[in-house]
Amino acid sequence: MIKVGLLGAGRIAGVHATAISSHPGSELAAVSDYFPEAAQKLASQYGTVARTTEEIIADDSIDAVLIATSTDTHSDLIEAATAAGKAVLCEKPVDLSLERAQACQVAVAKTDRPVMIGFNRRFDPNFGALKNALVAGEIGKAELLSITSFDPAPPPLEYVKVSGGLFRDMMIHDFDMANFIMGDLPVSVTAVGTSIVDPAIGDAGDVDTAAVTLTYADGRIAVIKNSRRAVYGYDQRVELLGSEGLLQAQNMLENTVVKSTTAGVTGAKPTYFFLERYMPAYAAEWAAFVEALTNGGALPVTLADGVAALAMAEAATRSAKTGAPVMMANILS
Amino acid sequence: MIKVGLLGAGRIAGVHATAISSHPGSELAAVSDYFPEAAQKLASQYGTVARTTEEIIADDSIDAVLIATSTDTHSDLIEAATAAGKAVLCEKPVDLSLERAQACQVAVAKTDRPVMIGFNRRFDPNFGALKNALVAGEIGKAELLSITSFDPAPPPLEYVKVSGGLFRDMMIHDFDMANFIMGDLPVSVTAVGTSIVDPAIGDAGDVDTAAVTLTYADGRIAVIKNSRRAVYGYDQRVELLGSEGLLQAQNMLENTVVKSTTAGVTGAKPTYFFLERYMPAYAAEWAAFVEALTNGGALPVTLADGVAALAMAEAATRSAKTGAPVMMANILS
Amino acid sequence: MIKVGLLGAGRIAGVHATAISSHPGSELAAVSDYFPEAAQKLASQYGTVARTTEEIIADDSIDAVLIATSTDTHSDLIEAATAAGKAVLCEKPVDLSLERAQACQVAVAKTDRPVMIGFNRRFDPNFGALKNALVAGEIGKAELLSITSFDPAPPPLEYVKVSGGLFRDMMIHDFDMANFIMGDLPVSVTAVGTSIVDPAIGDAGDVDTAAVTLTYADGRIAVIKNSRRAVYGYDQRVELLGSEGLLQAQNMLENTVVKSTTAGVTGAKPTYFFLERYMPAYAAEWAAFVEALTNGGALPVTLADGVAALAMAEAATRSAKTGAPVMMANILS
Amino acid sequence: MIKVGLLGAGRIAGVHATAISSHPGSELAAVSDYFPEAAQKLASQYGTVARTTEEIIADDSIDAVLIATSTDTHSDLIEAATAAGKAVLCEKPVDLSLERAQACQVAVAKTDRPVMIGFNRRFDPNFGALKNALVAGEIGKAELLSITSFDPAPPPLEYVKVSGGLFRDMMIHDFDMANFIMGDLPVSVTAVGTSIVDPAIGDAGDVDTAAVTLTYADGRIAVIKNSRRAVYGYDQRVELLGSEGLLQAQNMLENTVVKSTTAGVTGAKPTYFFLERYMPAYAAEWAAFVEALTNGGALPVTLADGVAALAMAEAATRSAKTGAPVMMANILS
Repeated sequence: MIKVGLLGAGRIAGVHATAISSHPGSELAAVSDYFPEAAQKLASQYGTVARTTEEIIADDSIDAVLIATSTDTHSDLIEAATAAGKAVLCEKPVDLSLERAQACQVAVAKTDRPVMIGFNRRFDPNFGALKNALVAGEIGKAELLSITSFDPAPPPLEYVKVSGGLFRDMMIHDFDMANFIMGDLPVSVTAVGTSIVDPAIGDAGDVDTAAVTLTYADGRIAVIKNSRRAVYGYDQRVELLGSEGLLQAQNMLENTVVKSTTAGVTGAKPTYFFLERYMPAYAAEWAAFVEALTNGGALPVTLADGVAALAMAEAATRSAKTGAPVMMANILS
Repeated sequence: MIKVGLLGAGRIAGVHATAISSHPGSELAAVSDYFPEAAQKLASQYGTVARTTEEIIADDSIDAVLIATSTDTHSDLIEAATAAGKAVLCEKPVDLSLERAQACQVAVAKTDRPVMIGFNRRFDPNFGALKNALVAGEIGKAELLSITSFDPAPPPLEYVKVSGGLFRDMMIHDFDMANFIMGDLPVSVTAVGTSIVDPAIGDAGDVDTAAVTLTYADGRIAVIKNSRRAVYGYDQRVELLGSEGLLQAQNMLENTVVKSTTAGVTGAKPTYFFLERYMPAYAAEWAAFVEALTNGGALPVTLADGVAALAMAEAATRSAKTGAPVMMANILS
Repeated sequence: MIKVGLLGAGRIAGVHATAISSHPGSELAAVSDYFPEAAQKLASQYGTVARTTEEIIADDSIDAVLIATSTDTHSDLIEAATAAGKAVLCEKPVDLSLERAQACQVAVAKTDRPVMIGFNRRFDPNFGALKNALVAGEIGKAELLSITSFDPAPPPLEYVKVSGGLFRDMMIHDFDMANFIMGDLPVSVTAVGTSIVDPAIGDAGDVDTAAVTLTYADGRIAVIKNSRRAVYGYDQRVELLGSEGLLQAQNMLENTVVKSTTAGVTGAKPTYFFLERYMPAYAAEWAAFVEALTNGGALPVTLADGVAALAMAEAATRSAKTGAPVMMANILS
Repeated sequence: MIKVGLLGAGRIAGVHATAISSHPGSELAAVSDYFPEAAQKLASQYGTVARTTEEIIADDSIDAVLIATSTDTHSDLIEAATAAGKAVLCEKPVDLSLERAQACQVAVAKTDRPVMIGFNRRFDPNFGALKNALVAGEIGKAELLSITSFDPAPPPLEYVKVSGGLFRDMMIHDFDMANFIMGDLPVSVTAVGTSIVDPAIGDAGDVDTAAVTLTYADGRIAVIKNSRRAVYGYDQRVELLGSEGLLQAQNMLENTVVKSTTAGVTGAKPTYFFLERYMPAYAAEWAAFVEALTNGGALPVTLADGVAALAMAEAATRSAKTGAPVMMANILS
C-alpha cells in the first residue's frame, strides 16, 4: 500500500484524491494547500488529514507525493520531494521556464527517484486505442498527424496573464500527444497564432487560436490546432494518416441519443470539459503510476517527456513571434 | 448513513457492493450467500462482514437489503425483509410466477415499506436522455416505439432451463423499458419466437429470438426484438417515432477510434455486455434508491412496475405459443 | 435499340421517361395518358410523340411498354400489352385485388411475354449492397430482419380512400423487400395498425401506422414498421441480424455537413421523398429490364413477385382486423 | 441554346461532354483534340463532329469553348478564344506560370469576354451547404479553417514531373476552396512538404505530403493538408470553426450499409476518386456557367480566382523550400 501526500487542494487535486483513495494499492495519507482551510476541507471529504507541505515531504512514512499546486512551485516541489526520497507524480507543465525545468531534471537525476508528469491524455482510452492500432501496424507507417484541441471557453484574463501563454499552458498537452503518437521529437516547429476570439487576450500578450506544424527527421509531418473557444464543448480529436490507412480518435459525446426533426438530425455535444472527458484517464494515469512503483517497471511518462513538451512550447512561442520555423536543436542545446 | 445488507454474493452482487460502498450516503454492513465462502470473499473485499441472510434480516441496525440472490428466493426475501421493517432493492424479476409476485405485492402493501425493483436500464443516461426529450415535447406525441435488445451470446443451457424463458428472463427488461417510455401498460401483447440460434434452446422449451408487438389504448404501438446472440456485442437500442420527430438511443461503443483502410471504415464494437454497458446505470440506480429513502420521495421503480413487466412476460409467453394476441386485461384480472 | 411506349404521363412517368431516354439501349417512342394534354406535354419534353394507349399497344414497331397509369388499369394493360406481344414493366402494385392479379398472371403465362414489376427499391445501391453482403456470407445465416419505412407526410384523404389501404399501397414495397432479402415467402403474417397520425384516415377505413411480423418455415422472423408521417423526411432503413453479424442499410442524407453549436451536433435530414431517394434506383431498374430483354436473361423482379407481395398485403389487411396471424397458405390457395 | 466547342477529348473532357449535352440550354457543337482519333471517338459518342481547335475557334456560330486540354495550352487557348469573341470555361490551373497567367488575364480583360475557371469543388453540394451555413451566420464569424484533401494514390511519375508540383497541381483546388470559404486572400502562406509516400517523387523535385498554413489580415487562420495517398479512397473534408460553432463537410460514402461483426462496425469507404465524388459538381458547374451566360449575371468563379489560387501555389512552393512564410503581397506585386 503506497502512502500518498497530495500537495494542492484545488479542483484537479480533488480528481486525484478520488483516484488515490479508490485505488486498492494506494492510500491518501495527507493533503496540503497554500490555503490551509482548502486542505482541511478536502482532507475531511476523503477521511484523511491536512498538514503542511513541509510536514508531508519530511514524513518518511509517506512514499509518494502528487503535486497539484500552481505551476510556479512545481520544480521546487519536485526537487524537494525527490531529495526526501519520494516518488512524484506532478501535474503538467513541469515549469514555465525551460531552463528551470532542465535544472530540475538534473537535480532529480541525482536522486534516482521516479518522477512522472501528468499528461493525462496518454491514458485516455481513445487515444490509447489509436496508438495501439498504430503500433499493431493497422495503418502501416505513420505519415501525417493532426491534433485538434479546442477548449469550450477562454479562461479568465487573470489566468491568461500568468499562464505562460497558450503554447505552454494549453498546447503543451498536444505537444506531448504528438510525442506519444510519433515516438520521436520533431526537428522543427512552425507556429502561427492570433487573438481572434478575444482581442484582450492579444493585449495581454497571448494568442487564443493557433496552428503549429512539426516536421520530423524521417519526413513525417504533424499539425496541431488550438482554439480557446469551441462553444459546443471540449473538442479533442486526433487523426493519423499512414501508408495503409487513417486512424481517427473522435470526441466522446454526452450521450448516444439522436433526434431527427424538421430541423435536422441532432446528436449530443462532446462531453463539456476536461474533468468529464478525461475522468477515466486520470484514474488510469494513477493506476499506471502505482503499477510502476509497485512492480518496478518504467514510468509511462517521464520528467524528460515533460521537459520535451515544454521545449516544443518554447519553440512554438518563439516561432509565433516571427513566423519562421524554430529548430528544436537550437532550443534543446 | 443507510446501513445495507447485501443478500447474494455473485457477479451482480459485486456490482452492487461497489455502488453501496462508493455512495456517501450508504454503508455495506454485511453480506450473505447460499455459499458462505462466497459471502466471506465478497465481504473481505469490501471491508465488511459475512453473516447469514436470517441474521441480516433480524438485525435492526440494518436499514435496507439489496436482494441479488437467485430468482426463486426473491418473493420470500422481499416479504421477510419488509416484514422486518427494511427497505428493499430487489434484482429483477420479482418472481417467475406472476401469481406469486402478486401475492408478494399484497404482503408488502401491508408493511408499507419501500420496495424498488432493479430495472437498471431506466438509469442508463442514454435511455434517460431519450425519455427526457420525450417529456420535454421535443418530438411531440409518441406513436411508435421500437426496442432492440440482443445479448452477445446465449447463456448455458442449464441456465435456460431454469430461467423462466426468454420473455421472463431477458425481454422483461424491455417490457419495463416500454412501460418507462410509454408511461402506460399495453392493451394487448402479440409474440412470435423461434430457436434459430440454437435448436437445443427450442428442445428445452424456450426461444432464442423473438418479436413482440404491443398495442396501447390510445393507438400507440411498440415493437420489441430480442436475440440471444449478436456476435458483435451487446446491442441495446431504443427508437421512438413521435408526431414531430424521431428519437434514437444508440449503442455505447468501446472507444471512438475509427479506422479507414482498403477494407472500409471501421469503428469499435458496442461495449461487450451488461456489466460494461450498464455500470453507470447501476450506480445511478443505487443513488436513486438512497435518495428516495433519505428524502422520502417516490421510488423511481416500484414493486408494481416489477409485477407489470412480469405480467407482460406472461402474456408474451402465452402469445408465442398460439400466435394470437393476449389481452393484458385477461392476465391481470 | 428497344422502342418503348410509356403509358401514363404523371410524376412517376416523368422519372421513367428520363430513364428510358438516357439509356443507350432504349428509345422513348410514344407517350399516352388519360389526359391527352399531359401526354402531349411529356412527349414534347422528351422529343417524342403523344398517342393513345390503344395505338401504342397496336403498334408492332413498339417492343415494350412501361405502365405508369393508375393502379386500377394495371391488370388490363398488362394483359393487352402482352397479348400484343410486348414486354412490360409495370409500376407496383399489380392490382388492388389479389384475385384479379392472379388472373392476370394466368393470362400473361399464356403469352410467354416478360413482365417485370416496378419494385424500384431492389435497385437501390444501399439495399443492394446489403443483399450482396448477405449472399457473400458476411453475416452468416439470416435470422431476424427489420424494415423501417416511413413517409414524410400522409397522402391526401382522397388518395387514401382509393389506395387499397396502407398494406397494399405503401407496405407492399416492404413486403417485396422482405422477399428480396429473405429469398422466400413467409408462412404467417401478423399485423397491427392504428390511425394515430390522423383519425380521419381511420374514419376512411385505413391505418397510418402499422407493425407487421412475418414468420418463415425455417424459423426466421421479419418485422416491418410503417408510418405515414416522419416529419424529418423519408425514412428507409433495413437491418438484418445474422448468425455472424448485423447489416444495416441506413438513410441517404441531403448532404454530409455537420454543425456543432450550443444546441448540439446536427447533420442533414434524409433525402426528402422517393423521387430524391430512389432516383438512381429507377435508372438501375430500367437498365436491368433492358439488359434482360436484350440478353435474354431472367427478369430480376417478376409478375409472380408482384402477386406475392400483394398476397402478403392481403394477409396483413386481414390480420390487422383481427390481430390474429394469417397463414399465407390460406391466402395463396 | 448555347453552342459549345469542347477543346480536349480526354477523361475529364468526357465528363464535360455529358454535362454540356444533358443541359437543356447548351449543345455540344464540336470536339477537338491533339489526337484527332480521340476527338472523333468522343464526338461520335455524343452525336457531334470532330474538328480542329482552330476551326472551332474560328467558327462564329460557336458561342463558347470548354478548355480541357493539357495545362500548357490553357493561356494560349483562353486568349485565342476570347479574342474570337467566345465565352470560356477553362479547366484549372490557368497556367503553371503565374506570370503567364497574369498576362493572360490582361489580354482577356481587353476582350471583355467571360472566362470561368473550373474549380468544380465550389459546386459540390456539401461544400456549398457549408458555405451557405456560414453566410447564414449559423456559426457566427469564421476563425479557423481546415481543409483535408487526400488523393487515393499518387499519379505516375511522368505526370508528376510535368505537373508543376503538388501545390500547383493538387493543392490549387484547396487554395481556391479557402478563397471560396474565407472570401478573401491570405496575407501569408507557410508550407512544409515531404516525399514520404514515394521518395521517387522527391527525386523528381516534388513533394507528396504537405501542410500549409494561411494567415489573414483580420486574424483568421487556415490549414490545408494534402497527401497523394489515402489507400481508403478520396478523402475530401472541410472544417470551419467559428465564434458560435463548427461546420464539417464530411466524405461521401459508396453506400450507407454498416456491418457489425466480431471484427468491429464497418461502413463503406469514401467514393473512390474525383469523377465519382464530384460528378454532380461538374454538372452544377456547367449549369452555373450557362446560367451566367444566358442571364448575364456574374460568373461564380473568375479568371482572377484562377490567378489568385495560382499565386498561392507559387507562394507555397517557395515557402516549402525555405520553411519561412511567403507574403502574398510579394507574390502578387
